[in-house]
Amino acid sequence: MTTKELVSQINLKKSFLCIGLDVDLNKIPKHLLTEEDPIFEFNKAIIDATQHLCVAYKPNTAFYEAYGIKGWQSLEKTINYINKNYPEIFTIADAKRGDIGNTSTMYAKAFFEDLAFDSVTVAPYMGKDSVEPFLNFKNKHTILLALTSNEGAFDFQTKKTDNTELYKEVLETSKKWINSENLMYVVGATKAEYFKEIRKIIPESFLLVPGIGAQGGNLNEVCKYGLTKNIGLLVNSSRGVIYASNNKDFASAARQKAKELQLQMESILN
Amino acid sequence: MTTKELVSQINLKKSFLCIGLDVDLNKIPKHLLTEEDPIFEFNKAIIDATQHLCVAYKPNTAFYEAYGIKGWQSLEKTINYINKNYPEIFTIADAKRGDIGNTSTMYAKAFFEDLAFDSVTVAPYMGKDSVEPFLNFKNKHTILLALTSNEGAFDFQTKKTDNTELYKEVLETSKKWINSENLMYVVGATKAEYFKEIRKIIPESFLLVPGIGAQGGNLNEVCKYGLTKNIGLLVNSSRGVIYASNNKDFASAARQKAKELQLQMESILN
Repeated sequence: MTTKELVSQINLKKSFLCIGLDVDLNKIPKHLLTEEDPIFEFNKAIIDATQHLCVAYKPNTAFYEAYGIKGWQSLEKTINYINKNYPEIFTIADAKRGDIGNTSTMYAKAFFEDLAFDSVTVAPYMGKDSVEPFLNFKNKHTILLALTSNEGAFDFQTKKTDNTELYKEVLETSKKWINSENLMYVVGATKAEYFKEIRKIIPESFLLVPGIGAQGGNLNEVCKYGLTKNIGLLVNSSRGVIYASNNKDFASAARQKAKELQLQMESILN
Repeated sequence: MTTKELVSQINLKKSFLCIGLDVDLNKIPKHLLTEEDPIFEFNKAIIDATQHLCVAYKPNTAFYEAYGIKGWQSLEKTINYINKNYPEIFTIADAKRGDIGNTSTMYAKAFFEDLAFDSVTVAPYMGKDSVEPFLNFKNKHTILLALTSNEGAFDFQTKKTDNTELYKEVLETSKKWINSENLMYVVGATKAEYFKEIRKIIPESFLLVPGIGAQGGNLNEVCKYGLTKNIGLLVNSSRGVIYASNNKDFASAARQKAKELQLQMESILN
C-alpha cells in the first residue's frame, strides 16, 4: 500500500486508529477455547466488528510465536483474512526485527512476501545495513523504533550524545538512508511532550503511536504536535479495544471502544 | 543449562565453537531439495557431523521465518533433535527480540518454553523492562546485543554519550538489572580492538562472538583480550562451516572446517 492510499483511507473513515491484535489465550472469552483455532476466531470477530472504524491492524508477533507453529498458523490466517476481505486496511507486523544485512533480507521476505504485510517494525540498534534491506521493498513500509512507550525508553533512547539524544540521532541518521521515504517511526503516546521536537526533525513522516489506553497515553496531547497536514499518525490501541469484554459480547464491546476512539479522532480531524 | 555446565563442556571438548545454522535453500546441496523438509535434513546432517567439535548451535530465526510455517516447523524439529540427541549442547535462538514487558514475556515463553532453547539474543534499545522478562527464567540465558559485527554498529552503538559510548552504557546499565547473572553479550569478532575495554566492564560474562570467517574476524585477536579463566567466549561460525561444500560431501566438509576451528581453539586453550 502507498502512503497516499493510507492517507486517503484515513480521510474516508475519519479515523487514524490502528488496532493491536495482541491475542493472549488467557484473556479471550472462554467460549472460544473450544474452537480449532481460538486466536484466529477471536481476530476474525474483532476484525469484522471494527474494520470500518480503523485503518490499520497490528498483530504483535510475540503473541503468536508463543504458541509455536499453531500460533504462526493463526498469524498467517489472520493476515490472509485481512488482505482478502479488507484489502484497504494497512497491516503492520509488530515484530521489532533487525539483524545483519543478509539476515534482515530474510526477515523482510518473511513479513513482506511470505505473510504479505504492508509494514514491519524494526529496531535501530544495529544501524544502517540492518535496516536498508527492509527499505528495498517498494510500497512496503519500515517502522523504525525511535522513542518507545515503555519506562525502559529512558535507559538508552534519551541518553545524551555529543550533539543531541540517541532517539534524535536515530531520526536524523535514518533520514539519510537509501529509500528512507519508506520509513515510518514508533513514538510512544506516553512521550507526548517529545512530539514537538520530533516533528522538527521529521515533519512529514508517519508515526505509529502505541501507548494510548492501558499504558496511559493521551490522544489529544499526541495530536497537538504529532498531526501533520497529511495526518501523519497511526494511533494504536490494543488491550483497550480487544479486551473491552471477555464475554460473548466481546466483538460488539470492541466495536464500541473503537467507535469511541474513532469519534475522538473525527472531532480532532475536524 | 547452567553456565557451569557450559564451561565444563568447553573444557571437555577443548572447543568454544558455536555453529550458526543459518540455512538458505539457495545455498544447500541440490540433492536435499527433494526431501520433505530439506532444511531439517541439512541441519540434522550438519549436527551429526559436527556435534563433537562444537559446544553450541545457533539457528538464526530469520532464516526459518522466511519460509513461513514450514520454516517454523524446521526450526522446531531442529531444536528438538538437538535437545533429544545431544542434550549437552548449548542452544541459542538468534532472534534479536525485545519489546515492552508483557510482550517480551511472550517472546521468552516462545523460545525458552515452547522451543526449549537455552538462550536467546535480545536487542537492548527498549531498555530494562524489555529485557528483564527474559532474565526471569532460571538456567536460561539472555544474550544482549552490545557491539555487533556489522558496519552499522558504528551508526549508534559507538556513539559518544555524556560519559562514555552507547555500547558501554548498555554493558554498565544491564549489569544492574534483576537476575543479570543470566546475561551474556554479543560482541562481533570484527571489533577485536574493543575487547580489552569491554572486559574492564564485564570481566566474567560470556560473550557470543559472531563474525569469524565470512565477515572477516580473527580468532586469535578475539581471544587475546576476550578469554577469561572460565573461557567466557562462544565463537560463532555460520557460513564458513555449513557451506564448506554444496555437494553430497557437505556434512564431512563442514566437519573438516569445524575441526580446523576446534584445533585452533584447543591450541589457544593450551
